[in-house]
Amino acid sequence: MLDEAVRGERVAKSTYEAALPELRVDLLNAQYDLRSAGFATVVVVAGDDRQGANDTVNVLHEWMDSRYLDTTVFRELTQDESERPRFWRTWMALPAKGRTGIWAGGVLRVINHRLDGNINDDDLDAFARHLQRMQAELVADGTLVLKLWFHLPRPEHEKRLKKAKKNPRLGWRVDELDWVVAERLPAATPLIERFLRETELPGAPWYVIDGTSWRSRNLTTGQLLRDAIVGALADEQARDAAPAPEVSPPRPLRRSGRTVLDKIDLGATIDDDAYSRRLALLQAKLYRLSIQARDARVSSVLVFEGNDASGKGGTIRRLTRAMEAGDYKVVPTAAPTAEERRYHYLWRFWRRLPRDGQMAIFDRSWYGRVLVERVEGFATEGEWQRAYDEINDFELQIVEAGDFVAKFWLAISPEEQLARFTARRQTPYKQHKITDEDYRNRERWDHYVTAVDDMVLQTSTDYAPWTLVPANDKRYARITVLETVVAGLQALVPPKKKGKAV
Amino acid sequence: MLDEAVRGERVAKSTYEAALPELRVDLLNAQYDLRSAGFATVVVVAGDDRQGANDTVNVLHEWMDSRYLDTTVFRELTQDESERPRFWRTWMALPAKGRTGIWAGGVLRVINHRLDGNINDDDLDAFARHLQRMQAELVADGTLVLKLWFHLPRPEHEKRLKKAKKNPRLGWRVDELDWVVAERLPAATPLIERFLRETELPGAPWYVIDGTSWRSRNLTTGQLLRDAIVGALADEQARDAAPAPEVSPPRPLRRSGRTVLDKIDLGATIDDDAYSRRLALLQAKLYRLSIQARDARVSSVLVFEGNDASGKGGTIRRLTRAMEAGDYKVVPTAAPTAEERRYHYLWRFWRRLPRDGQMAIFDRSWYGRVLVERVEGFATEGEWQRAYDEINDFELQIVEAGDFVAKFWLAISPEEQLARFTARRQTPYKQHKITDEDYRNRERWDHYVTAVDDMVLQTSTDYAPWTLVPANDKRYARITVLETVVAGLQALVPPKKKGKAV
Repeated sequence: MLDEAVRGERVAKSTYEAALPELRVDLLNAQYDLRSAGFATVVVVAGDDRQGANDTVNVLHEWMDSRYLDTTVFRELTQDESERPRFWRTWMALPAKGRTGIWAGGVLRVINHRLDGNINDDDLDAFARHLQRMQAELVADGTLVLKLWFHLPRPEHEKRLKKAKKNPRLGWRVDELDWVVAERLPAATPLIERFLRETELPGAPWYVIDGTSWRSRNLTTGQLLRDAIVGALADEQARDAAPAPEVSPPRPLRRSGRTVLDKIDLGATIDDDAYSRRLALLQAKLYRLSIQARDARVSSVLVFEGNDASGKGGTIRRLTRAMEAGDYKVVPTAAPTAEERRYHYLWRFWRRLPRDGQMAIFDRSWYGRVLVERVEGFATEGEWQRAYDEINDFELQIVEAGDFVAKFWLAISPEEQLARFTARRQTPYKQHKITDEDYRNRERWDHYVTAVDDMVLQTSTDYAPWTLVPANDKRYARITVLETVVAGLQALVPPKKKGKAV
Repeated sequence: MLDEAVRGERVAKSTYEAALPELRVDLLNAQYDLRSAGFATVVVVAGDDRQGANDTVNVLHEWMDSRYLDTTVFRELTQDESERPRFWRTWMALPAKGRTGIWAGGVLRVINHRLDGNINDDDLDAFARHLQRMQAELVADGTLVLKLWFHLPRPEHEKRLKKAKKNPRLGWRVDELDWVVAERLPAATPLIERFLRETELPGAPWYVIDGTSWRSRNLTTGQLLRDAIVGALADEQARDAAPAPEVSPPRPLRRSGRTVLDKIDLGATIDDDAYSRRLALLQAKLYRLSIQARDARVSSVLVFEGNDASGKGGTIRRLTRAMEAGDYKVVPTAAPTAEERRYHYLWRFWRRLPRDGQMAIFDRSWYGRVLVERVEGFATEGEWQRAYDEINDFELQIVEAGDFVAKFWLAISPEEQLARFTARRQTPYKQHKITDEDYRNRERWDHYVTAVDDMVLQTSTDYAPWTLVPANDKRYARITVLETVVAGLQALVPPKKKGKAV
């Protein structure tokens, strides 16, 4: 398919120079219009024609307003990158809404690793699959994704290299890697073609760009980008002009039958003595495990969700008091900031993933998408429905990176909640924790029950199961959580060898 | 001084419990009031009493609202951190205005490195000096800096360690490092005391906190923090109520005599042939050097300032076209965003410092502080006056990290500028580059001349000199810049050994 896409088309200098001024004005205008749009543009620049891909990035920088371009060249993983799940750096390279990201350098590198035997076919497939999922999530979120593969047939590669070698004014643009690519092309082509097929996506196809003539290459790229942005802007306008889509209403109050929450024994309790003993023991274990996890570079991601006033904060403090302050971060999740709203909803959580040996404790989390955003109608039905899969894939990537993931739902009864609200009003330093909104949320109790039920059913996976925690007795809840965390870490962290200093 | 500060004061349980509720409400209120204030709070938590410092961080997290706390524990440098100047990570840990940052773990680590002989006295002094400067810059910017040193006398250290060893419910909180600290205390104390003296600062003194009794320690810390925030808020209110300070007016139009700009020969020019030859040669050299710089992990920071329409963008493109797209980033500097305004003005530039082997090209820069912000009155006279020193120290830190720094002022005549404005209006794809503001700026030409003169005189250092570039002939300017960059890189980048593949 690659060589077939190359027609050797050439563009005369006069044609090029005649077309250029209008194209550049178009591109700038498209870029300026994009600034106020509700979506971002990602241009993936890849290809066996390294020099062509590289030149194209430079040409786009020359033609467009670089103030609104975010260009990332993916090289070998840095320490910071290798300490997070594979696509962390890709998420961190996301442009904000209204901006254009240019991503270069990632794909050919992975293909090269396959040819060198550093990774196997399964690794390459996993890479393609996660990339495919990420693209799909971005496209579903409205991002314009334009994927360009710059190709030169092998004879053209060699012709160009020889010519460059002879000509000192061109020679400096050619390096060893270009020769390597040319030599490897026959072996790489089937891999490349499979990769391109596996990462095809409706709405975001690969365009193979003929690198034979730079004028043709530049014009094609510029026109593709212009047409894509102009088209996406028109689509957005059409959607805005259309009758407003039905807002996801506070839906099916309660399905018939029991929910997962009904299975929780809210009467579970623990007596004073047992609590004190267990707490001290578990905290001592957690302390040792957290030091061992740091040394073994095992990260943890803990998620706390639950009813208002279910005791998330107090439970988290029982964990953190048994750890060194530098080994964990508590990440409270409120409504997204203005900056965060300019990205996919998962972006702000990707950003907070812990580095090796660290623990991130999310006090509320990405599950807001399928809880408060669903119930309050902040997310459309389409958005929260597809969030289950998106979240499962997100967590899978964390687990695949060797991290520990635990998710807790702290459940209390409506009566217990009311009692706690009242008590909070009377405790001076807890008054800040209670607002009218908390009372309003109570009116939607049944909607939340349905949402929690769906959430647990759809996102309790073997690699990241939910732990449902009876929390009418706060102390019982704390012990349950500590036990789960300790057991989970014990399974992942190799025990310290004797004789080695802690 | 350390042991003298320790009085072994104890607080009775009943006193503690009586004082706590009010203190916690006060702290929360202070924290909530801080949210709308125009400054940030930084709490430096350090000390030989590691457990005390660590517990204090946990206690602050328990008492305060963790949504508005940014806690950073500085450990050994990560790869990302070690690839930037020493204080990069400290700048990256800055809390935004309205927030509280807790910084722990840095100081004792450096002292330990000195004891281990990993660094010498000069290194320790340099660390103290830069820390001192950074503090001073933050305090001048309005940041509240509270520095706490938690101290235990050596007998108390050992008593505590032995007690902890015997008691399984406390023992898990003690590790080898605590023993090391206790043993080293006599050797470390003179170093610590010198360090504390060297980093004393009016407005941000060190408080030595007695770690003997945890109740006393907690109360003292909480009260200090509360009083500091409440005091700083009151100061801010008083300033706001006071008559507005005189706005820095468009000042001394022109000092008598010549300015540095008068020495530039704006008539300098280069003919077509020479230009083409030199350009090709210099770009070829730059290409090789940029690859070598990447391999040698030498970073570059280039600064472009100049009159409007002086050709900064075109010159930068002549550089970047001779480099791999992944080796450089062009950082255009516009008015700060809402997020950036919540930090010290240098923060957004610290953020963009390149990692090892990369080049950051600033299209306008931190010099905006002493140019547009001075001339337009966006910065007070005090602010832009102290910026010269701040900038010199900033650039010194970059150079000390082994990076190449070059700064270019592109100078054109007022007549040439007007001609270019007119031409831009007539070139379709350059119309975006010209606004009414550009014409307005021309009216302040003489003010800018004074500001540029002061800037060059005050910030042309031996380690980061200004290059004044005649730019009436754009091609002459491009060649001058390329020559300067090539010469600078050649001096820093070791030449490739023969026989090694590029």
